Amino acid sequence: MQPNGILTLTTDFGSVDAYSAVLKGVILSVNPQATLIDVTHEIDAQRIAQAAYLLHTGYRYFPDGTVHLVIVDPGVGGDRKAVALCSPRWAFVAPDNGVLSYVWKDLVAEFGREQLQLIELSDTRWWLPNVSATFHGRDIFAPVAAHLSKGVKAEELGNPLAELVELPLAEPRHRLDDAWEGRIIHVDNFGNCITNITRDFIAQHGSIEQVEIGILDQRIGRICRTYADSEWGMVMALFGSSERLELAVRNGNAARMLGVGIGDSLRIRFVS
Amino acid sequence: MQPNGILTLTTDFGSVDAYSAVLKGVILSVNPQATLIDVTHEIDAQRIAQAAYLLHTGYRYFPDGTVHLVIVDPGVGGDRKAVALCSPRWAFVAPDNGVLSYVWKDLVAEFGREQLQLIELSDTRWWLPNVSATFHGRDIFAPVAAHLSKGVKAEELGNPLAELVELPLAEPRHRLDDAWEGRIIHVDNFGNCITNITRDFIAQHGSIEQVEIGILDQRIGRICRTYADSEWGMVMALFGSSERLELAVRNGNAARMLGVGIGDSLRIRFVS
Amino acid sequence: MQPNGILTLTTDFGSVDAYSAVLKGVILSVNPQATLIDVTHEIDAQRIAQAAYLLHTGYRYFPDGTVHLVIVDPGVGGDRKAVALCSPRWAFVAPDNGVLSYVWKDLVAEFGREQLQLIELSDTRWWLPNVSATFHGRDIFAPVAAHLSKGVKAEELGNPLAELVELPLAEPRHRLDDAWEGRIIHVDNFGNCITNITRDFIAQHGSIEQVEIGILDQRIGRICRTYADSEWGMVMALFGSSERLELAVRNGNAARMLGVGIGDSLRIRFVS
Repeated sequence: MQPNGILTLTTDFGSVDAYSAVLKGVILSVNPQATLIDVTHEIDAQRIAQAAYLLHTGYRYFPDGTVHLVIVDPGVGGDRKAVALCSPRWAFVAPDNGVLSYVWKDLVAEFGREQLQLIELSDTRWWLPNVSATFHGRDIFAPVAAHLSKGVKAEELGNPLAELVELPLAEPRHRLDDAWEGRIIHVDNFGNCITNITRDFIAQHGSIEQVEIGILDQRIGRICRTYADSEWGMVMALFGSSERLELAVRNGNAARMLGVGIGDSLRIRFVS
Repeated sequence: MQPNGILTLTTDFGSVDAYSAVLKGVILSVNPQATLIDVTHEIDAQRIAQAAYLLHTGYRYFPDGTVHLVIVDPGVGGDRKAVALCSPRWAFVAPDNGVLSYVWKDLVAEFGREQLQLIELSDTRWWLPNVSATFHGRDIFAPVAAHLSKGVKAEELGNPLAELVELPLAEPRHRLDDAWEGRIIHVDNFGNCITNITRDFIAQHGSIEQVEIGILDQRIGRICRTYADSEWGMVMALFGSSERLELAVRNGNAARMLGVGIGDSLRIRFVS
Repeated sequence: MQPNGILTLTTDFGSVDAYSAVLKGVILSVNPQATLIDVTHEIDAQRIAQAAYLLHTGYRYFPDGTVHLVIVDPGVGGDRKAVALCSPRWAFVAPDNGVLSYVWKDLVAEFGREQLQLIELSDTRWWLPNVSATFHGRDIFAPVAAHLSKGVKAEELGNPLAELVELPLAEPRHRLDDAWEGRIIHVDNFGNCITNITRDFIAQHGSIEQVEIGILDQRIGRICRTYADSEWGMVMALFGSSERLELAVRNGNAARMLGVGIGDSLRIRFVS
């Protein structure tokens, strides 16, 4: 990968403290030409799965050569590893705690495992001189990402790792009554409930026209094409911008209206 | 307009999801030299009028050649148009749903209608190859804005439009008892209540010294010059940084103290 | 100081209004090459002490030549001064209301008073042509900071000032029973309670191993090295990333668990 100087940041630092600015100061000290883009700093404190999902929804839209820095790091100072993951198009720097799970699955599918470099960050040349026990984002991850964005090669960062820590990603589950049970994996800013049911999953098991969706005691109608296709005030299902089935309410908040959230289940059934 | 490479973003995407980062990734893929500035991503979901007002308070402070991208788009996937509005100094890319109402009024007054180009975004050359039904911000607006910022001409983006969709902007209303009724159109982060009564309006109908202001059952004193001119804990009226009459409390929160918000009315009377 | 074109922003403007974008537009109008980094815009409205502390936690991580702009300005339009503070490494532009207290103490210790330039912003050449009574951030501070970042010399901005307004910074207090009373000066996004007890303070009065810490009716155990060293669900004490004693809960929220906040006291005792 030829770096393009763009780095993105995904953290659980919030927007009050100076922690995210500290990362940026450290990065600019190494690479004054860096272009810094916030993905979000509003990951719930220490919620690795949320960071993994949100990173996944955004990384592909950045130009080839972008370095994605992810710091949601409840195990800082303990024995979790620090890693860099380099693909032919994008690189990632993160704690090895599952936060790269979705991205890893994607990249393995796209490029094959052998085209990916997974490196444990062990070469202290790229770190700040003094490493604290509580803020590796500042002392290790940020300077390493900055050096990557300047052209340091992945293999210079440390030793290859065979395996990445992966979260158990929720997959739709086949039920005894022949329906499938999906789960809400994210609720976005508009209250849209995004599920683990992808367009590909539907295509593999039937067709969109056959799908019947239920959540709690409600039957949701057919899958719509866009928000404007539904009646006002009715919960609808559609494929959102990341090609996942989502529940939405036109100009409303589906999660609030249904009283559901992350982890809640929904049923889909293919009817002939 | 000669573009300067600066793009601003005003959306209702919030700061948790990766949606705003996706816009930036798309823009940087088209124009890697772009300078990206967030106006806000905290517009209340789908509140077009708020976005229209806040955009209006900021756009003029950017250098000539800036492209302002606005995505508050409840009608995405329906039949609302997508537009670019180009003036001799700044350009705007947005859904045609009223979000450019304040800006349009300003620009027509400043340059005249004939100096403004209003274009319907219909030329798909500048879009992402696959356009979703739910995220035109990513698929249409962001890449078009990026191309504009690189020098693509407005007339290449599509066909001219005769008219823009405009919100009915609240104007002060003359009452039978000879007072004027104004409205709070924004409450800012400090609780200052900003109204639809401008300094120009006062000048047209009398003088600042003659103005007597009331809200609910309270009489507010004379118009002060600055926050420091009032007594502690008292609601005051003054012209804020955008030359509109606002109600404020020194080191306090006027909206909370009065229990008022957007849409609430106040009375002004010219006394001789 | 040779400017590097980087400017940081620390304000209480929040993330809804366009106020922070206005600052950026003004800065880019003066210095189109500026690199703009947000420290935070989420200082509580008018809480000068919080801004002073947060600025202090971040400024050193920026490369030499960075200009730090701070606008928490409850006295705008009154008689508080506007200042620039230039050190051999970084410059600061802010209202003279105590917001530079921590930084000033640091810089005097590092460089000596005679190496610091403290200037009252009085030369109107660097201001916007029209100065409002309510938004000096836009009209004075931002353009001055932008000119500094382009190479205008501190002495061109106005006249030297002998003294800076300083907040009374809370220092640990010696108690009759020979313990020390410290205070919580910040609660971060993770609920970590950061105190006014520094590593240096401990070193001056004893050793880390001797320290016994109490808060409310709880005795906190020894000082840990990192979050991962404590048991789950127990409040721990450790030195955080800014070398201050902090109370934390592994994967939890210490402030919420203890029911404490800024200004609350804790006791430390050196036991032999």
